[in-house]
Amino acid sequence: MTEAVATARRSRITPEREAELYEAVLDLLREVGYDALTMDAVAARTRSSKATLYRQWGGKAELVAKAVRHNKPGGPADEVDTGSLRSDLHALTLRSDDCEMEQNSALMRGLAMAVHGNPDLLRAFKDHLIEPELAALRRVLQRAIDRGEVRADNPAIDYVMHMMIGAFAARTLLDEQPPTQAFLLSYIDAVVLPALGVPTG
Amino acid sequence: MTEAVATARRSRITPEREAELYEAVLDLLREVGYDALTMDAVAARTRSSKATLYRQWGGKAELVAKAVRHNKPGGPADEVDTGSLRSDLHALTLRSDDCEMEQNSALMRGLAMAVHGNPDLLRAFKDHLIEPELAALRRVLQRAIDRGEVRADNPAIDYVMHMMIGAFAARTLLDEQPPTQAFLLSYIDAVVLPALGVPTG
Repeated sequence: MTEAVATARRSRITPEREAELYEAVLDLLREVGYDALTMDAVAARTRSSKATLYRQWGGKAELVAKAVRHNKPGGPADEVDTGSLRSDLHALTLRSDDCEMEQNSALMRGLAMAVHGNPDLLRAFKDHLIEPELAALRRVLQRAIDRGEVRADNPAIDYVMHMMIGAFAARTLLDEQPPTQAFLLSYIDAVVLPALGVPTG
Repeated sequence: MTEAVATARRSRITPEREAELYEAVLDLLREVGYDALTMDAVAARTRSSKATLYRQWGGKAELVAKAVRHNKPGGPADEVDTGSLRSDLHALTLRSDDCEMEQNSALMRGLAMAVHGNPDLLRAFKDHLIEPELAALRRVLQRAIDRGEVRADNPAIDYVMHMMIGAFAARTLLDEQPPTQAFLLSYIDAVVLPALGVPTG
């Protein structure tokens, strides 16, 4: 599909209608989970035709990944650039308040499980959620290297996403509670910045 | 139940028979997953009575947690004490070879999913798998503090398990492959030791 055709197809739906549709998809996800979610149910809930849904999104996996991405506060396109690595990482964390993190925690856990049985969902997640976040993180780290805050050959640079995913996963499992802003800021100061060789205060 | 009674009950099964039983439970888990695993199937596969299984283990969650723990190479009781934090952490990692890690990766992922719908499985996992590992890790860290390798007030001390869980979870998700020894050793050197303020060489 060429970009012009894609744009023409996308233009059939207004941004307001798109947001409404994503909200309905997330509601359905919370109610029944990924595996039981059907395009029929999305079509019925949103009074749209299945043909429109498939034309616009290609399939369930992409529709779900884009709905989750749309729901993320800020989003990767919102460039964070405060002038220091510590306040960039803090600013990225503060995009979600504790209430949003708690709501998203259950949703993301359900989807993380569904990913394993659905390679197309894993692909859509990597393309629409993980890669844009990784790219934003790489830009934040590159600016820290350019400013001389982090050495270009620091081996922890490749593991920042691993550290952060650990904070989310282990918090849920070990501490049996969703991550809070306070927890994540403390983890960034205690783990991520020292691993990168950046003094925290 | 007093310790004497517990010992008497446990003594009805020989260690060889116990190992055989755990192996059968893990085989069944790999075949059908936790939710579809029944005590009837375990009883049939191992030619034991359900009454024996319940008397010995209390229930499915405990039986599964103990089977997984039994399968772990080394185990928390195997004290690792090499004289330095870096080689202690490396030694803990080297208890499993890459082939074992690959086999266990799929099994653990399935169980990590089952944990969310089964609070008794989460409890059994915490009691029989996570807590003993955490306790062993705390002893390794305490010895590093006693030797003067790590400062007692280093805030990363509370997050070592989070960092390690991140390495496993993110490796599976981001890199789409099970963790290898080489990956984990490199992660320990790049992330865990620098966060703890320990020079890596």
